[in-house]
Amino acid sequence: MAPLSNIRINGDRLWDSLMEMAKIGPGVAGGNNRQTLTDADAEGRALFQSWCEAVGCTMGLDQMGNMFARYEGTDPEALPVYVGSHLDTQPTGGKYDGVLGVLGGLEVLRSLHEHGIKTKHPIVVVNWTNEEGTRYAPAMLSSGVFAGVHTQDWAYDRVDAEGLKFGDELERIGWKGEEEVGARKMHAMFELHIEQGPILEAEGKDIGVVTHGQGLSWTQVTVTGKDAHTGSTPMPMRKNAGLGMARILDKVDAIAWSHKPHAVGAAGHIDVYPNSRNVIPGKVVFTVDFRSPDLSVIQDMEARLRAEAQGICDEMGLEVEFEKVGGFDPVTFDEGCVTAVRNAAEKLGYSHMNIISGAGHDACWINQVAPTAMIMCPCVDGLSHNEAEEISKDWAAAGTDVLFHAVVETAGVVV
Amino acid sequence: MAPLSNIRINGDRLWDSLMEMAKIGPGVAGGNNRQTLTDADAEGRALFQSWCEAVGCTMGLDQMGNMFARYEGTDPEALPVYVGSHLDTQPTGGKYDGVLGVLGGLEVLRSLHEHGIKTKHPIVVVNWTNEEGTRYAPAMLSSGVFAGVHTQDWAYDRVDAEGLKFGDELERIGWKGEEEVGARKMHAMFELHIEQGPILEAEGKDIGVVTHGQGLSWTQVTVTGKDAHTGSTPMPMRKNAGLGMARILDKVDAIAWSHKPHAVGAAGHIDVYPNSRNVIPGKVVFTVDFRSPDLSVIQDMEARLRAEAQGICDEMGLEVEFEKVGGFDPVTFDEGCVTAVRNAAEKLGYSHMNIISGAGHDACWINQVAPTAMIMCPCVDGLSHNEAEEISKDWAAAGTDVLFHAVVETAGVVV
Repeated sequence: MAPLSNIRINGDRLWDSLMEMAKIGPGVAGGNNRQTLTDADAEGRALFQSWCEAVGCTMGLDQMGNMFARYEGTDPEALPVYVGSHLDTQPTGGKYDGVLGVLGGLEVLRSLHEHGIKTKHPIVVVNWTNEEGTRYAPAMLSSGVFAGVHTQDWAYDRVDAEGLKFGDELERIGWKGEEEVGARKMHAMFELHIEQGPILEAEGKDIGVVTHGQGLSWTQVTVTGKDAHTGSTPMPMRKNAGLGMARILDKVDAIAWSHKPHAVGAAGHIDVYPNSRNVIPGKVVFTVDFRSPDLSVIQDMEARLRAEAQGICDEMGLEVEFEKVGGFDPVTFDEGCVTAVRNAAEKLGYSHMNIISGAGHDACWINQVAPTAMIMCPCVDGLSHNEAEEISKDWAAAGTDVLFHAVVETAGVVV
Repeated sequence: MAPLSNIRINGDRLWDSLMEMAKIGPGVAGGNNRQTLTDADAEGRALFQSWCEAVGCTMGLDQMGNMFARYEGTDPEALPVYVGSHLDTQPTGGKYDGVLGVLGGLEVLRSLHEHGIKTKHPIVVVNWTNEEGTRYAPAMLSSGVFAGVHTQDWAYDRVDAEGLKFGDELERIGWKGEEEVGARKMHAMFELHIEQGPILEAEGKDIGVVTHGQGLSWTQVTVTGKDAHTGSTPMPMRKNAGLGMARILDKVDAIAWSHKPHAVGAAGHIDVYPNSRNVIPGKVVFTVDFRSPDLSVIQDMEARLRAEAQGICDEMGLEVEFEKVGGFDPVTFDEGCVTAVRNAAEKLGYSHMNIISGAGHDACWINQVAPTAMIMCPCVDGLSHNEAEEISKDWAAAGTDVLFHAVVETAGVVV
């Protein structure tokens, strides 16, 4: 056997598999529409299973449809090292979001197999069901059930836009297993994922060593004024909910900037009522998204939003209501696993930097039940959740090389 | 005959007719849905015609479906005095917007008839087709064709949301006439209308003497930034079109206030793309509505909007485009007709004030081809284009009394 440090994964083989998987559930603009629990999802799962079996894995399947391809280690008693992500995509998704983490895990196994390397701990490549949350909200549903964040019954009762239940659709596509969800214990878990942001590309780094996941707070703000004709209502008699919204959004921006460099804030969702050119908005509903790796910062931003918005609305004669409609706490990934990632990048000579995951990932939930870390690779222009999502073959290979060495070091090479 | 100055219209009869008309095309919340060129519109027209014929009118009908109920004067050569408004409503409209002006005109005829009063000039009560513009944009379509603002062919080609053409629907409901549109010449035209704003009620006045119609400018603004994940995009790398919109809206408000007291400005229509909670808006399209009775003020506001928005967007790395999507020039109503309205209010002892119409009305177009004036009565809380629109019987009667005396004075009583 070649010295372990000389082993590199096969970037061409990885890329070919990414392209092969992308043929299933193609999008309309070069990306993918392989939403969870569709026939395309079932087809993608079958392809993944066939690839895993070809390197000698046995496939486990739990009651949420999470797939676990087990590659045996030398110690059958040792807890496995898990590696993976998700194969489902957004309706107009890319070829790499999630898929790279699963097929990168498969490539780790293929490389071990090819080079005849044995590890003490088994290695399990996992495909988490419904990470995207587009067809069935919320995102990261099945890793959430695995980590005890949601109950399985609640998850089964989620319905899609056509009224079909998650539990029924999981059964329909034939990927509902027998295994109890969350019963597995993990030695560690690694997730490779594209950044979905612009930082690594802008900084010219091959690898993002993910130290934290940002916490999230979604506050839905309802500003109520009074519908009135845009022509016949004098300025002093207006209660313009749209103007109130505008002034609050400016404060949201200032609040996020006051906690630079890591905090962010914006409103992506804004609904104006009645949304007619000649009616002053009587109501605006919008959702403020604040994120930070520091829980106290999130709490401060939430509190200041409420105080500032209340002040603005009081002054304008508007009513304002707040509802917290989503959120999760910041994640601090496991120090040992993070160090394994950083050491691997360093050893392999890839440029790297610490990075904070701005998006949610399955690893964020699994971190609650097992030592976990993430590896990020750049993506072109930060673009994701978009059929135009793109990465280079070299970026994919570098990320998977780091994944290989971090996983193998953690699983313990048997010389 | 009683002295003319003692004559008052019959407020109960007027109110009963308003309530009777409101039974046709009822809304879901106490108002009306009698949209133009629907079966309900046809039914309302037939009822109006039967009422007009009962006082001896002959009905004219032009090729746009405009109805002209002629009450003869003593001089068959004299040009008629026109009085009227529209019977069509918004989909969730009130019982008075437009209807009061038509049935108020009818009440003028009924009072003349009842008291045996003869005028030199004939009086014609008119129902203009499609004032509302909800089913077929633009508003004031048929008075616009009458005044030469639009061509008839263009009007016929307007389509509703189901793809049905105006011309076809006019024919279908059986109210397409033979008469050439705009061929009629007018001695004068008076339109009574509810204020659709809060001023008269707030000032405690019975009558608004409408001296001007505000000019309107609609500028559609498209701010383009970049869709990006709300979590994984650092603040300095964002191009948040929603924030650009917010800052522009604040300037719109300031620009309108700088031309107080008559200018107004707001955005009633705001569409955010992709409008997802976790995506920074990549594009926002909104329409800025500026109004003023002074054309130079409108032009100044338009120019400053473009300059301010360009400056904001340049600073934020956003693109901005402007499109003028609507507008009309301010209207100065005929001095003689306005004086007739003011004198009538004064003579009858009704409290009154000069007012500027903030909304568009058929009278605004007819003013281009005939001496025209408007009378306004208060409406509760300024509410209109809403099923909850409300006026009092006394307000309706006072407005119609003023209409009667202004019309009769203009038409010339034959003693």
